Amino acid sequence: MSTNNAPTRIYLHESELPTQWYNLRADMKEQPDPMLLPDGTPAQEEHLYPVFCKKLAQQEMDGQTRFFDIPGEVLDIYKVYRPAPLCRAYDLERTLDTPAKIYYKFEGNNTSGSHKLNSAVAQAFYAKDEGLKGITTETGAGQWGTALAEAARYFGLDLIVYMVKVSYEQKPFRRAVMETFDAKVFASPSDTTNAGRAILAADPKDSGSLGCAISEAIEVAVTNEGYRYVLGSVLNQVLLHQSVIGLETELAMQKLGEYPDVVIGCAGGGSNLGGLAAPFLRDKITGKAKDIRIVAVEPASCPSFTRGKYAYDFCDTGKTTPLAKMYTLGSGFKPSANHAGGLRYHGMSPILSKLYHDGYMEAVSYEQTKVFEAAKLFAQRETILPAPESAHAIRCAIDEALKCKETGEAKTILFGLTGTGYFDLVAYDQFNNGTMTDYIPTDEDLEKSLEGLPQVG
Amino acid sequence: MSTNNAPTRIYLHESELPTQWYNLRADMKEQPDPMLLPDGTPAQEEHLYPVFCKKLAQQEMDGQTRFFDIPGEVLDIYKVYRPAPLCRAYDLERTLDTPAKIYYKFEGNNTSGSHKLNSAVAQAFYAKDEGLKGITTETGAGQWGTALAEAARYFGLDLIVYMVKVSYEQKPFRRAVMETFDAKVFASPSDTTNAGRAILAADPKDSGSLGCAISEAIEVAVTNEGYRYVLGSVLNQVLLHQSVIGLETELAMQKLGEYPDVVIGCAGGGSNLGGLAAPFLRDKITGKAKDIRIVAVEPASCPSFTRGKYAYDFCDTGKTTPLAKMYTLGSGFKPSANHAGGLRYHGMSPILSKLYHDGYMEAVSYEQTKVFEAAKLFAQRETILPAPESAHAIRCAIDEALKCKETGEAKTILFGLTGTGYFDLVAYDQFNNGTMTDYIPTDEDLEKSLEGLPQVG
Repeated sequence: MSTNNAPTRIYLHESELPTQWYNLRADMKEQPDPMLLPDGTPAQEEHLYPVFCKKLAQQEMDGQTRFFDIPGEVLDIYKVYRPAPLCRAYDLERTLDTPAKIYYKFEGNNTSGSHKLNSAVAQAFYAKDEGLKGITTETGAGQWGTALAEAARYFGLDLIVYMVKVSYEQKPFRRAVMETFDAKVFASPSDTTNAGRAILAADPKDSGSLGCAISEAIEVAVTNEGYRYVLGSVLNQVLLHQSVIGLETELAMQKLGEYPDVVIGCAGGGSNLGGLAAPFLRDKITGKAKDIRIVAVEPASCPSFTRGKYAYDFCDTGKTTPLAKMYTLGSGFKPSANHAGGLRYHGMSPILSKLYHDGYMEAVSYEQTKVFEAAKLFAQRETILPAPESAHAIRCAIDEALKCKETGEAKTILFGLTGTGYFDLVAYDQFNNGTMTDYIPTDEDLEKSLEGLPQVG
Repeated sequence: MSTNNAPTRIYLHESELPTQWYNLRADMKEQPDPMLLPDGTPAQEEHLYPVFCKKLAQQEMDGQTRFFDIPGEVLDIYKVYRPAPLCRAYDLERTLDTPAKIYYKFEGNNTSGSHKLNSAVAQAFYAKDEGLKGITTETGAGQWGTALAEAARYFGLDLIVYMVKVSYEQKPFRRAVMETFDAKVFASPSDTTNAGRAILAADPKDSGSLGCAISEAIEVAVTNEGYRYVLGSVLNQVLLHQSVIGLETELAMQKLGEYPDVVIGCAGGGSNLGGLAAPFLRDKITGKAKDIRIVAVEPASCPSFTRGKYAYDFCDTGKTTPLAKMYTLGSGFKPSANHAGGLRYHGMSPILSKLYHDGYMEAVSYEQTKVFEAAKLFAQRETILPAPESAHAIRCAIDEALKCKETGEAKTILFGLTGTGYFDLVAYDQFNNGTMTDYIPTDEDLEKSLEGLPQVG
């Protein structure tokens, strides 16, 4: 029954763990447009100091330095759960009867159940190193909040998490696991901040959004001595830290004598896709692999790339952040309450936005019932219960493999399996019993949410 | 900060995966006492055929064959999630300030979140190979049921699971994940069997026990054409399959030039401890390592080894099975409803019972708040949220490491981290908010539950 010529899972040796993060911006032909202050002038590094740690502000603004050393304290934790395995989905290939080879990089082997820990550890370390007392953040489905709780506890930092209310209610155990790492967790919008109170005043039943939770977390960070704010996606610094995914994958594929024809990642704010695809986007940009395809997969209910506008926008609903040039649905956008997984941010990484705009990437969107269909098939064949986020990439990888079945092409497909779905059983239950529904925003919905875009840039 | 001289995690290469299971009985000086029929005569292999697949019945009864080949189809699935890592708990060591070296074998990297998949895959394969239509089983905390759901679905078998009612209600998502693998799950005692109805007639509010769920699952297996019953612990065949844990651990430690001074495993029915310790128990029996200590850790609320009786007893509450000689609390024993994790079986593996009785093993018990204290510390330092079951072993490993701190001995401690606690957040929540309680049965409780022991053997 076994047709193995490559191992089913490849674990690099600990000594092969990357010791530097890779900064894709250093190889981009054109830099992403700069962050702007509300008055339309470009933000400088020091403008970020009230919100971010200095080292992180520096990483955020540095488009030139190709490699950043990973601090030893960060490597110590990386070694507890990394290198992460590159897996060959032999059984899924057999089930699909495809000539394609399907590989996935699995990032779920830690308590956060996702790749989010890669950046959480880095950001918590720099906060500790700067002598801070605590950090604040938002979380949607809860992977980022859990990862940061792990990292903050490890370094002895206080952590305050604002969790999107609809997810807080759908996933009660996320709070419990964050509390196991001593984090304080509030459902957002909350009555603990001006931003939250303003949103609740407008609609006491507001179910929350990442943009709103960000406003609350930033407000707490800037009004409390010794606190800074950290974010799990979208930012340049996060893509930098997540490059560890791509670097490991590149090395593991080299060892197999493989190179992907297509790289697929789910995309909410872009942290996973940007990390996984970084070396491959470099190869495409530099012409080393000009035919490689990089595909972002997003939910049809939150279609930033496929239906958003490439424009300057606020990163939060309260409009307190600098402006970023990105694909956006408008900072007030919220996916409908029936949306089960993460990938619920209104915007998208400025780096990936620029590359998508310049034609280096593709994007597709799927409705969630199609996504869970793929999730269930994958779980049944590969013994990993995927996170709904990750299952977007699985859906696309399966469809690419089925295209190969039609054409007879033996393509090499690589996708990012960002995490596990142990906290998403309410959604799985809905899918299993047939009560899961889909939702696609209408053109009118999107036009309305884009109305308030700032008039700059 | 890093003091590493061994890697933090060691993954054997796929080519180093054991291709045979090891049968500890072949090296025991005295065999475990034989299974008896209700009339007191020894059971023969063919007596087991109505309940077990023939190949599994053969493995159950064979005390002579030292190694059994692992079928290729089983190895194909093992390769998806094995070899499992052997980890050095550097940060826990630093936190405890102990001279001891702490290693753990981590078995949680699959959807069942535990080592249970090792035997589930084997048992489902033999059932498929024998041409069966389906299998039935019981599950307590749900790890075994989930593992078997994965395995059954993989081989295209129907699966019916009876889940101990108190766990079914404490862990609603276990049902959802088993259903994702198309299993049918009933809370036990149920009204679907004579055994369940009899128990409900005696007490409509009966919260269930493994012994009761076993009675229900066996009844369904023997009364439905093409079905057999499978069990996740206690049996000799299960310890055989689980030896893959110990064999991998032995090889990984050899590569490090290490050998444990003490091997620690949680013990409910003995599947994990029996598997992990198999090569080390062999070394103790044969005199190759006569000073090695093997420690079983059990809940104070279900203390089979530490307070049970070594006697013949039924394996189920309905008294439908042959009799096994084992440490038992009586087949009607139930841990109190506040008991959070698994490890709730009234008996214990006959192999381990014999070895414990003959002085090759030690046993300790802990109350659950002490166990969760260790679980939380471990999660915070090692980024893995342990299952409550596994945390019993962690508690004991920490206490052994603290003894080393007192004595200054740099012992090598090895324990089994059997799985993850993603489905145990209700219990973690209780621990975090201070509402978790302990329970130790009184001597009178135990005397009463032991009253009904069969008068044979």
